[in-house]
Amino acid sequence: MKVRIGRDELLTGLQRVQGVVEKRNTMPILSNILLEAKQDGVEIVATDLEIGMRGLYKATVLQPGGVTVSARKLYEIIKELKAGEIELTSGDNNWTTIQAGKSQFKIVGLPSSEYPALPVIDREGLIPLSGAGLLELIRKTLFAAGDNDARYILNGLLVTLVVTDKKTSLRLVGTDGHRLAVTEQEVGKAGKSDPQEIKAIVPKKAAQEMRRLLEEGGEGEPLIGFTKNLMIFRKSGLLMTSRLMEGNYPNYQQVIPKEGGKKISVNRLELESALRRVSVLSKDKANAVKLSFAPGHMVLFSSNPDYGEATEELPATYDGEALQTGFNARYLLDVFSVMDSDTISLQMETPLSPCLIQEAENPGFKCVVMPIKI
Amino acid sequence: MKVRIGRDELLTGLQRVQGVVEKRNTMPILSNILLEAKQDGVEIVATDLEIGMRGLYKATVLQPGGVTVSARKLYEIIKELKAGEIELTSGDNNWTTIQAGKSQFKIVGLPSSEYPALPVIDREGLIPLSGAGLLELIRKTLFAAGDNDARYILNGLLVTLVVTDKKTSLRLVGTDGHRLAVTEQEVGKAGKSDPQEIKAIVPKKAAQEMRRLLEEGGEGEPLIGFTKNLMIFRKSGLLMTSRLMEGNYPNYQQVIPKEGGKKISVNRLELESALRRVSVLSKDKANAVKLSFAPGHMVLFSSNPDYGEATEELPATYDGEALQTGFNARYLLDVFSVMDSDTISLQMETPLSPCLIQEAENPGFKCVVMPIKI
Repeated sequence: MKVRIGRDELLTGLQRVQGVVEKRNTMPILSNILLEAKQDGVEIVATDLEIGMRGLYKATVLQPGGVTVSARKLYEIIKELKAGEIELTSGDNNWTTIQAGKSQFKIVGLPSSEYPALPVIDREGLIPLSGAGLLELIRKTLFAAGDNDARYILNGLLVTLVVTDKKTSLRLVGTDGHRLAVTEQEVGKAGKSDPQEIKAIVPKKAAQEMRRLLEEGGEGEPLIGFTKNLMIFRKSGLLMTSRLMEGNYPNYQQVIPKEGGKKISVNRLELESALRRVSVLSKDKANAVKLSFAPGHMVLFSSNPDYGEATEELPATYDGEALQTGFNARYLLDVFSVMDSDTISLQMETPLSPCLIQEAENPGFKCVVMPIKI
Repeated sequence: MKVRIGRDELLTGLQRVQGVVEKRNTMPILSNILLEAKQDGVEIVATDLEIGMRGLYKATVLQPGGVTVSARKLYEIIKELKAGEIELTSGDNNWTTIQAGKSQFKIVGLPSSEYPALPVIDREGLIPLSGAGLLELIRKTLFAAGDNDARYILNGLLVTLVVTDKKTSLRLVGTDGHRLAVTEQEVGKAGKSDPQEIKAIVPKKAAQEMRRLLEEGGEGEPLIGFTKNLMIFRKSGLLMTSRLMEGNYPNYQQVIPKEGGKKISVNRLELESALRRVSVLSKDKANAVKLSFAPGHMVLFSSNPDYGEATEELPATYDGEALQTGFNARYLLDVFSVMDSDTISLQMETPLSPCLIQEAENPGFKCVVMPIKI
């Protein structure tokens, strides 16, 4: 393999795959990327066996071929180079030479034939959707999904994609059992794909990578598709695949309180800032904060035998009976940080039943946080 | 104690002492600050028994008195409050109430009588000097001082202050045995203080705190002074004292190579960026990089059996015999990061003798880095 490629073009490709390659080094080749010089450029391929990414980058190919090298080392070298042309050459024993002006690097490589193959996918039938819409849906739900939770299935997002002859809509659900976020919006116009309904559970890491690619911006709408056990995502010439998670996602609908409970409305930023202050004096791990609904206002309270106690009162719209409950302040702050409306509402039946949090201007977004006993 | 104080004024005072208070919690009261309401404002006092800080902040004193409370907790609360007036009241059992609008905090306190007294110092005879000059001297030497080095005395900076009838000049020296930085400059005009020469070893933490205070900027020149075992530093109404370190500072002069060795001149930024690239492939811990002086250029080389090897060549002014040596790249990068000239020189007698690094436009600043055998 011998190619000439611009430093910035190569850097873009390397940045995109850093999140995919395996960091635990269980199989050495998984910390590598595959570089393949094709007729029309260089393909950069990365996989951790669960997620795969493949992108084509503009380059002058002097000799086709392929090699795999450390994703991190190559990235660290290219990042420190100035803009300009780089020559990549892989020779005997897969040693790969990087030549840029008077800088020369020879890095150890492994044969491209040993690199795990990405799943072969059918590019037909992918569904176009709004990149901004998908990004927003991921942002609003990802925080609630589990992190290495023992209940494996909670470490994913439940995706429901519905294409009708009128529109394409997408619903994402994340929960770790303590909090839940569900949001739904129209992400495409009619007539672009066949009517269908797809339900799939996407690993958190794949959702994070999608978010990162969407945050890059750039032109063109992304495409998404599902097979029996794969999600396929295409954007800006990049193809990402992810294994789907197998198992039954919890019946989240039954956790979401019905309208009709005690509902209090407050200013989101005021509540956020009061919560942050009160939680300074809450007990270290649980971040426990007492919350009271009272006519015309909400009161926050925390105490810690080692440090003291805090009380905050803020104006609220509420005319029901007084209600006192408690929360992990961190969980509430996570919810508020992905909301955008000035006014939000908290709604619950009893002090220990799930609390439904909604923003005034976005009925399609529902968060549920379980209260704690204080 | 009962005072009214602006949130921003209080926050400034609390920010300044966060670095001083003890984090290890060996003596609980050392993680507290002392608040003392005097006639003309509130004094905020902090100490870790080595360094002491005392500043006066504008406040309306309704009832004089004092109390000590957690420096961190008070700071975290005040930081999250909006600008406005705050009322601080300490009552029975030293509980302290912070009232700001509808926010109320009661924090645990300890009696002010239990707070360690700061050393009593004589404010006469302090020497005025240039804040910008002192800041520059600290920046150029602090990186070379030891960090919890077993050789206790290396965890400080050697300060030499010379006041003559013509000028005030200051020399700082830092070394951890592997690298050394010494810099000297005029920091004051004649006639402001009595002629004197002072030598003292200031703990690294005190130098860091001075740097932080100097970085705040603000009007007025700082004042510095020394007693037998204390350094005194005054700036913007703040008084800092630090115990001096006792012991013999190493005879650093004998480590600095004399002019006359092999001297190579290069562009600092080019060398910095080449070093960063080459060290990507150096052995993990030692960051070992080979460096060759050759007529007209400098060559950098590193290799790592697991990853590969790197070569960089950059133009240099050199006409001596070829010389090949090795360095910990991190140590060189630390030096270059506190230099400002475009052109720097490296000078050494033999491949294993100390390397003198200087910037072209600042003869008062000398760095020495010990080479390593590769």
